[in-house]
Amino acid sequence: MFKEPLQKIVDNVEGGIAGLVMGFDGIAVDTYVRERDKADINTVGMELSFVLTQVRKAAQVLELGAISEFAIKAEKLTIVIRVLSNDYFLALALTPDGNFGKGRYLMRVVAPKLQAEL
Amino acid sequence: MFKEPLQKIVDNVEGGIAGLVMGFDGIAVDTYVRERDKADINTVGMELSFVLTQVRKAAQVLELGAISEFAIKAEKLTIVIRVLSNDYFLALALTPDGNFGKGRYLMRVVAPKLQAEL
Repeated sequence: MFKEPLQKIVDNVEGGIAGLVMGFDGIAVDTYVRERDKADINTVGMELSFVLTQVRKAAQVLELGAISEFAIKAEKLTIVIRVLSNDYFLALALTPDGNFGKGRYLMRVVAPKLQAEL
Repeated sequence: MFKEPLQKIVDNVEGGIAGLVMGFDGIAVDTYVRERDKADINTVGMELSFVLTQVRKAAQVLELGAISEFAIKAEKLTIVIRVLSNDYFLALALTPDGNFGKGRYLMRVVAPKLQAEL
């Protein structure tokens, strides 16, 4: 159901590795992986869902309103997240030299389609 | 000591609110605030230091290597973080419509100067 829009994002961004739609409870709805050897996207997603929950709690304490985007740049992987709803998020994993800006843009474009299905 | 480089970042980015250099233990080294009414940068920083520690733990579990950058876009505030060392980070708070890309760029340019002082 979400495979096609996920593939559209991952395959169209330079350095795209994988994409997933996941619940904040750490359970993936759908995933798409371009380069299998690079990362176990489900494990990454599960760890991220925990971190994201902490970020949302911090934002609540600080009264910053809802979180819409979130990004982490690590030595071996760049991760971009877009919150789709109160329960689900979209994540994109890129190589460290991947096109961060384009990834963000494609996620923004595809998000409404994913949101309509959730 | 860090006021001048912090001001250089905050005042030169559209939507810049505040900047700080902080330890991962949540204790600020220095802060610069352009618009006092918008955010209590120290409280934001303290909450962030906790979140960042969680992110670093997750990155360690996932063997992603060191975290270099981290960003959160919330309804009322955008926060960009650049890790300076194992103990310190640089944070920039922007309005939601602020120039995220320019903020990131200026942080990258100024970081070596801050790192040399830490």
